[in-house]
Amino acid sequence: MSDPFVVVGADAAGLSAASKFRREAPDRDVVVFEKGRWISFAYCGMPYFIEGRVERLSNLLSLSPSEVAERGIDLRRGHEVVSVDSDAKTVAVEAATGESLTQPYSDLLVATGGRAVTGPFDVRGVDGAFTLHDMDAAAAMDAYIAPPDEYDPARADVSAVDRERVDHNAAQPAPETAAIVGGGYVGVEMAEALHGRGLDVHLFQRSDYLLPPFGEAVGARVAAELDATGVTVHTGSPVDALVTDDDPGVGANSRIEAVEASGETFPADLVVVGVGIRPNTALLEDTDVETGPGGAIRTDEHGRTNLPEVYAAGDCATAIHAVTGEDAWSPLGLTANRAGRAIGSTVAGTPTPVGEIAGTAVVKAFDMECGRVGILDEDEAIEAGFDPVRETVTAGSRSGYYPGSSDTDVTLVADRDTGRLIGGSIVGADRAAVRINTVATALESGLTVAEFERLDLAYAPPFSPVWDPLLVAAKVLNGSLESA
Amino acid sequence: MSDPFVVVGADAAGLSAASKFRREAPDRDVVVFEKGRWISFAYCGMPYFIEGRVERLSNLLSLSPSEVAERGIDLRRGHEVVSVDSDAKTVAVEAATGESLTQPYSDLLVATGGRAVTGPFDVRGVDGAFTLHDMDAAAAMDAYIAPPDEYDPARADVSAVDRERVDHNAAQPAPETAAIVGGGYVGVEMAEALHGRGLDVHLFQRSDYLLPPFGEAVGARVAAELDATGVTVHTGSPVDALVTDDDPGVGANSRIEAVEASGETFPADLVVVGVGIRPNTALLEDTDVETGPGGAIRTDEHGRTNLPEVYAAGDCATAIHAVTGEDAWSPLGLTANRAGRAIGSTVAGTPTPVGEIAGTAVVKAFDMECGRVGILDEDEAIEAGFDPVRETVTAGSRSGYYPGSSDTDVTLVADRDTGRLIGGSIVGADRAAVRINTVATALESGLTVAEFERLDLAYAPPFSPVWDPLLVAAKVLNGSLESA
Repeated sequence: MSDPFVVVGADAAGLSAASKFRREAPDRDVVVFEKGRWISFAYCGMPYFIEGRVERLSNLLSLSPSEVAERGIDLRRGHEVVSVDSDAKTVAVEAATGESLTQPYSDLLVATGGRAVTGPFDVRGVDGAFTLHDMDAAAAMDAYIAPPDEYDPARADVSAVDRERVDHNAAQPAPETAAIVGGGYVGVEMAEALHGRGLDVHLFQRSDYLLPPFGEAVGARVAAELDATGVTVHTGSPVDALVTDDDPGVGANSRIEAVEASGETFPADLVVVGVGIRPNTALLEDTDVETGPGGAIRTDEHGRTNLPEVYAAGDCATAIHAVTGEDAWSPLGLTANRAGRAIGSTVAGTPTPVGEIAGTAVVKAFDMECGRVGILDEDEAIEAGFDPVRETVTAGSRSGYYPGSSDTDVTLVADRDTGRLIGGSIVGADRAAVRINTVATALESGLTVAEFERLDLAYAPPFSPVWDPLLVAAKVLNGSLESA
Repeated sequence: MSDPFVVVGADAAGLSAASKFRREAPDRDVVVFEKGRWISFAYCGMPYFIEGRVERLSNLLSLSPSEVAERGIDLRRGHEVVSVDSDAKTVAVEAATGESLTQPYSDLLVATGGRAVTGPFDVRGVDGAFTLHDMDAAAAMDAYIAPPDEYDPARADVSAVDRERVDHNAAQPAPETAAIVGGGYVGVEMAEALHGRGLDVHLFQRSDYLLPPFGEAVGARVAAELDATGVTVHTGSPVDALVTDDDPGVGANSRIEAVEASGETFPADLVVVGVGIRPNTALLEDTDVETGPGGAIRTDEHGRTNLPEVYAAGDCATAIHAVTGEDAWSPLGLTANRAGRAIGSTVAGTPTPVGEIAGTAVVKAFDMECGRVGILDEDEAIEAGFDPVRETVTAGSRSGYYPGSSDTDVTLVADRDTGRLIGGSIVGADRAAVRINTVATALESGLTVAEFERLDLAYAPPFSPVWDPLLVAAKVLNGSLESA
């Protein structure tokens, strides 16, 4: 094998890197180890599969193993990289067949992704209790929700699927009530999905508002939207325990019956635990690799770790935050794809920055479109050295006389000393989400609020009032800065 | 009168300036002269009124004369400023009553707006032939379209309306066929409006594609959309003459019968001439005022003309283009509002930049949302000193597996030498228009294509694929720049 580029993990970051590298360095070998059977699937699409809006599990696959092979990439599924020897420049691999092997590398990319954490709750072996971070879980939950006589096995139409687990879940009685533990992205998206499947849904959130990274203005509006559609939202209400028909938290193939929160017991035939993810970094545990926020692998502007010729990208790696200039951990799809692609070029000989992150994120909650970017949290802003000033405005999304305008809440945060815009959020029913990209671009360009207020943004009655809601917010925030 | 700020024109720019000035300089007088009876109305809303989507003419008014008076602004409707003596610092005013007066000023704002031009066509005194640049025309056209026994006089529910003209038009037989002369904003919006009123609509455009400022990719897509909805589009087909039941182009109260184009005669009971607007600058004709592009009054970064203490803003004035740094004329609503507001502050003692323009514009054509910004035209780019490179891509607006994705065409233009992004356009059915604001922000921040490609834009399946269509375009354009 000539001068091999070894990639660990065959999802967004890993396969983007391998594909880009393959095109730019046709004379070198590239091998991708993937511990499981799944490759290149859309995490973000799983709630929509469960909702039924996406018809087939296969719709969520971007690339098949044979397409990867056609690109000239040596893909080895069922091969787990268990350790890295950065002096010898080798990785130790254990195959699902029981075989062990040692693979030398010239360059190594760790793209091992993240895993769902469950907090104090053990969902293993409990029927009706799920996390949602892999395709087998999505297929199993979908099968569990369907009444046994109505489940269509063609929904899980991918050979890699854990068919036994699907069949077991399909045989269970259909749930009527659902409890979602955690009101982040996954929680909110799953609330919509399960409501769409006809379940009576209760969403439990530890803190006082949903979607904490989006800030209170967004979280409160989303809670109101969920309530209005019939999802019961419990904020400030952490789940204390899962109740099964066995002893709580114990026993294989017990079935979920309820959750306990705020001293009450809420019946639940289905529980989704969505309390966050953590980076998968175990394979580097015995190295001197540096880690950063969230325990993710620290990387520089080219995706390099502190180990020679070892890169990291995707949900297991940090990136540089455009606003703070510091390491940050933002496990999202674009970050992974972009960093993978850049590292593929860099390893192939063209140094390419992975790009900074701005923490840009959007989420749909029924008719509400939510967006956030940058630093919204007061403490986080102060810790990064800013003196944050914030304003929230409510403005129409269209000219007042044009039908269909929706109240749009915009929050902007700036640094008092420099006037620099450091964060923003938006929520509304009419094209709100994509508007956050304007704020992201401003943040990454280092604009002040005064500069932002003077941006020549588009106006036409069906799409915006004369003053776009973002400009209204900037005007108000700039007024606060000037009067301060 | 103490140290008066005199404003000519009571629309967006003029009243924004007067209102802002009133708040910031409560001890000085402000007087606004308006030659007509209408103030503060939404030009951009008129097509939607005619379409019927907006129920009442009054819905298009932002401020009533009494609300203006309540703000402490001395508003004089029916007062035309006919000349300016910039040495004496006075304006000559002729009132509709026949009275003449001379008004001294300390500071003067010329906010006289623009007027629709008709090219070689004289629509005056021809029933069924209209331009669309004032509220009386909108009310008259609306009345003309309605069958005489179905017209609701409450549609034109504003006392300022030319009731005689409305009544005359309401009495005309209802038109069945319409010809629109000019495929710019007004033409495209009126095509949708008249189609919505049940007319058989033909749209004639001199050049080879609609919406020339949006570029060919947008224009072609909009033509296809109009065709698909039943509007007949004639591109490369200038109208040569209007045909009336009298001698063509002559005679009061003749009625339109047809238009001639490309050697053919097309029957038309209604004709809308929308071939452009020109700045109203007659009142400065006898001064040494400098003019710029389009014959508009040249202004600096604070909205000042070359005459001392004389400002200009809105559709009669130039502004500085963010990409070229040169004077440009972009008669649009935000430009007017923003400049007026800034000049109000400047005159009150707080110098405030009016802001640069980027030529940002959006327009709706049935289900198509269109946006443009910056320099798209090849010749214009070369003239501004750029070596333009362009790419157009078609990308989905959502993740492929998520229902409702729409092909979105993005064009980006960059300067070959510097890599700087200088223009962009977008068209698509799913949230395309507001996406142009991201490009506007990048242009105004001076980003290169490489920097734009690395922006952290939002991703969630309902709103965007992992790579937003804008990023896909940037990737392709950056590839072209690198390989050049």
